[in-house]
Amino acid sequence: MNLQKEFTAAIVIIGNEILSGRTVDKNTSFLSSWLNDKGISVEEVRIIPDKEKVIIDTVDHLRRTFGYVFTTGGIGPTHDDITSESISKMFSQKYQYHQEAYKILEKYYENQDFNEGRKKMAKMPEKAKLIQNPKTFAAGFYVENVFVLPGVPSILQAMVVNLDKLILSGSKILSASIDTSLRESSIAQELEEIQKKYKDVDVGSYPYFKEKPGTVLVMRSTNKESIDLCEKEIRLLVKENIINS
Amino acid sequence: MNLQKEFTAAIVIIGNEILSGRTVDKNTSFLSSWLNDKGISVEEVRIIPDKEKVIIDTVDHLRRTFGYVFTTGGIGPTHDDITSESISKMFSQKYQYHQEAYKILEKYYENQDFNEGRKKMAKMPEKAKLIQNPKTFAAGFYVENVFVLPGVPSILQAMVVNLDKLILSGSKILSASIDTSLRESSIAQELEEIQKKYKDVDVGSYPYFKEKPGTVLVMRSTNKESIDLCEKEIRLLVKENIINS
Repeated sequence: MNLQKEFTAAIVIIGNEILSGRTVDKNTSFLSSWLNDKGISVEEVRIIPDKEKVIIDTVDHLRRTFGYVFTTGGIGPTHDDITSESISKMFSQKYQYHQEAYKILEKYYENQDFNEGRKKMAKMPEKAKLIQNPKTFAAGFYVENVFVLPGVPSILQAMVVNLDKLILSGSKILSASIDTSLRESSIAQELEEIQKKYKDVDVGSYPYFKEKPGTVLVMRSTNKESIDLCEKEIRLLVKENIINS
Repeated sequence: MNLQKEFTAAIVIIGNEILSGRTVDKNTSFLSSWLNDKGISVEEVRIIPDKEKVIIDTVDHLRRTFGYVFTTGGIGPTHDDITSESISKMFSQKYQYHQEAYKILEKYYENQDFNEGRKKMAKMPEKAKLIQNPKTFAAGFYVENVFVLPGVPSILQAMVVNLDKLILSGSKILSASIDTSLRESSIAQELEEIQKKYKDVDVGSYPYFKEKPGTVLVMRSTNKESIDLCEKEIRLLVKENIINS
């Protein structure tokens, strides 16, 4: 399955709490599923620490390599939130208050202390465009093909609706899956033959070991006819092997 | 908190199923927690597809940058399992049967068809050393500072005991955390002052939004005295602010 660059994406999870194992990342699977549904294929995910140079180097490389880059984390009010400033530097843009973002926050905090930390959430690269946050009012933003989102999963998920119209839609990536009690090693060779035959289908084989072992065979493609034929052949292969086992 | 290179690590999660959002990665948090307990700091995680060039470029870069690299996934019997061959190429080593790995598998499959797919699981770089697998007998391996592990979490977790003696132990990374109902934005500035004072402690602030919003403040350091003093100051800051709020 080959996709044009414009329909590819990378995700950058920024945060020491994920690297230390303290917090389990939930944003990758959410964003990946959402992007897949739009026909955008996630080609790489990187989890990196809150370090300016690492953020700049990582995002700069990925934005040149893929159609879209989505970052999560590091846009809050505290000293360890350095994503927005790092992205400003990466684009060689001033890191300054975004007027609209500032007004939204000022209103939100009208009966509380609108302190430096809270104001900081309105600071962005000078050419940033807002991604509205319906939940806590601290907006995300985007510059060119880099989309900067918060790390808290519930907030990120609430904001995605405002991202929808900003992202191209590619050809829908179709998928089919077959869950079988067969061990993948018993059909490895025949499966490879089928993969070779259907070059525009990605055939994946994923063993699992729950109460009983088994395998999930997954096909992915943007070509409906190919994936249907491929699925048919694999179903037949599985059936024959179950009878013979 | 500065760590020498020899006490740093990167994790490479290899597999299209994670990138598509179909499967949620569980290996990062398990490996990160385990490495942290050994005083090894995970500095980067990359999730990449089953593509030879990407595997080679990614692992080669990371093994030169960090003390250890752990890969997970892609060492099974099917056509989409290309990690072992890619790692062989990366090290410019022959990709061949490892005698001991072959014997273990031959014995395991003695009453079943020991087919090409199953034999493939014994193929490794010529200088690979085995990491025994107590669960399904298909071993992992390591070459220099690159450790190649399976993707299935339960198998990976069962193998880690055999890795233990192969990894240096660094200074234990101590951590403390404070869970408070305060919004992080109300104490952002004071928290920054404390972070500046304790340069060998990493202070992280992680907001959450469950039934009620709140913040977890996390301190990490290899210096017991610093982390204790830092925690004391942050506890005081939190207390004062709760009284005043």
